[in-house]
Amino acid sequence: MTEIEGKRYKAALVVIGNEILSGRTADKNINWIATKLSSHGVKLDEVRVIPDIKERIISTIHELQGQVDYIFTTGGIGPTHDDITSESIAEACGVAIEQNEDAYAILENHYGPEHLTTARLKMAMIPVGAELIPNPVSSAPGFVIDHIFVMAGVPQIMQAMLDHVLMTLKGGAVVLSRTLTCHLAESVLAEELTEIQKRWPQIEIGSYPSFSRKDFGVSIVLRTEDAEALELASREVEIMMVSKGEQPTIL
Amino acid sequence: MTEIEGKRYKAALVVIGNEILSGRTADKNINWIATKLSSHGVKLDEVRVIPDIKERIISTIHELQGQVDYIFTTGGIGPTHDDITSESIAEACGVAIEQNEDAYAILENHYGPEHLTTARLKMAMIPVGAELIPNPVSSAPGFVIDHIFVMAGVPQIMQAMLDHVLMTLKGGAVVLSRTLTCHLAESVLAEELTEIQKRWPQIEIGSYPSFSRKDFGVSIVLRTEDAEALELASREVEIMMVSKGEQPTIL
Repeated sequence: MTEIEGKRYKAALVVIGNEILSGRTADKNINWIATKLSSHGVKLDEVRVIPDIKERIISTIHELQGQVDYIFTTGGIGPTHDDITSESIAEACGVAIEQNEDAYAILENHYGPEHLTTARLKMAMIPVGAELIPNPVSSAPGFVIDHIFVMAGVPQIMQAMLDHVLMTLKGGAVVLSRTLTCHLAESVLAEELTEIQKRWPQIEIGSYPSFSRKDFGVSIVLRTEDAEALELASREVEIMMVSKGEQPTIL
Repeated sequence: MTEIEGKRYKAALVVIGNEILSGRTADKNINWIATKLSSHGVKLDEVRVIPDIKERIISTIHELQGQVDYIFTTGGIGPTHDDITSESIAEACGVAIEQNEDAYAILENHYGPEHLTTARLKMAMIPVGAELIPNPVSSAPGFVIDHIFVMAGVPQIMQAMLDHVLMTLKGGAVVLSRTLTCHLAESVLAEELTEIQKRWPQIEIGSYPSFSRKDFGVSIVLRTEDAEALELASREVEIMMVSKGEQPTIL
């Protein structure tokens, strides 16, 4: 993998799953992966949820390859007929898919030779040239090829696979953040906040309103790699809030 | 809106939000919208989570316009500097953005004329030719233009806007589904399930393994518009499970 000093690596996540699009299953992986990548200094640049259709998987991978450094996928690497991610990734990368001997050994050890059915052997079919990603939960491995990390959709398995992947992944400068929350309406702060953003172009300033039954409020989030700028700009936001009669909670 | 008899309308959802990509906020809208569209007979074909960058919003809208009948967006229509969805959608549709008199009246009524600041007035800036989507929670409206439904990101507001939108939206045949769950490993069913899928091409059959600390299992989900086929194929799945010593739970 090429390393570029000081570069912030970008990633995309492709969630492959009809069950997410139909609403049957609520995704639990997007936020987990976003949080882990952030704390590793990798910028998650886009997420796509797409159906279990080979042509869609291939075209999505090809589009994202021009846009980011790493692509993560979740879902579709099990033993059933609707598990088509591995063959789709092989085709997207222009390589064959074949029985991987290491994956075979892992599955044989897990299930026992007499229970290594045709369906289970499907999980040993891996694109040629890929490296395996271990699965400590249920054995069937994920894999990485051409900076595409193919992981399971079951959250416990995905999380274990991601931890393994992150040990090997180049990140970047870690992004620092500060959140100032108070009980003002977002619109009360908007004009002064625009001025603060203009003064601090190196900081990404986000404004997130909240509403509860009786109360409302706003969280201002500052994100940057520049620790000194973060201190100074956060202080400006704090002073602005105090000037409007609110002492913010700062995290 | 063109109506085509028996057509299944397709939709895409664009979640606009740096806070989702950074992991700071866990999205709560995707599953809600997916479920509502499904029960309305609209097929959610893709979800994209993208950053608050005007060029990205515009290119994403243009790509999806060729693919689906309806586009829903969430996020970025508030009063602050990072709320750029409305101007981006206007540009994507090739129209100007201007102060909408109905939106102005709504905001004036909500905040009172003396509190209608420049920042709040930003929420009255609507693409020319758009229709407003009411916001019973905090007044600032969403809008629809060229089959693009622009909604708030705050879940309570989005949900109210979506309910309004769905009353006016063409759907399609409602998809029926049946879920059979049992305590078998997915791989035990995989081969026979492939045969059942071959016999019933009009049914989308998904297989979703589950793992808990001590137990594992699998849910087979059948989805189709054909009620009779659903009955017959579900019965085949049930017989298969029973033949392996498991009485499935059927929902």
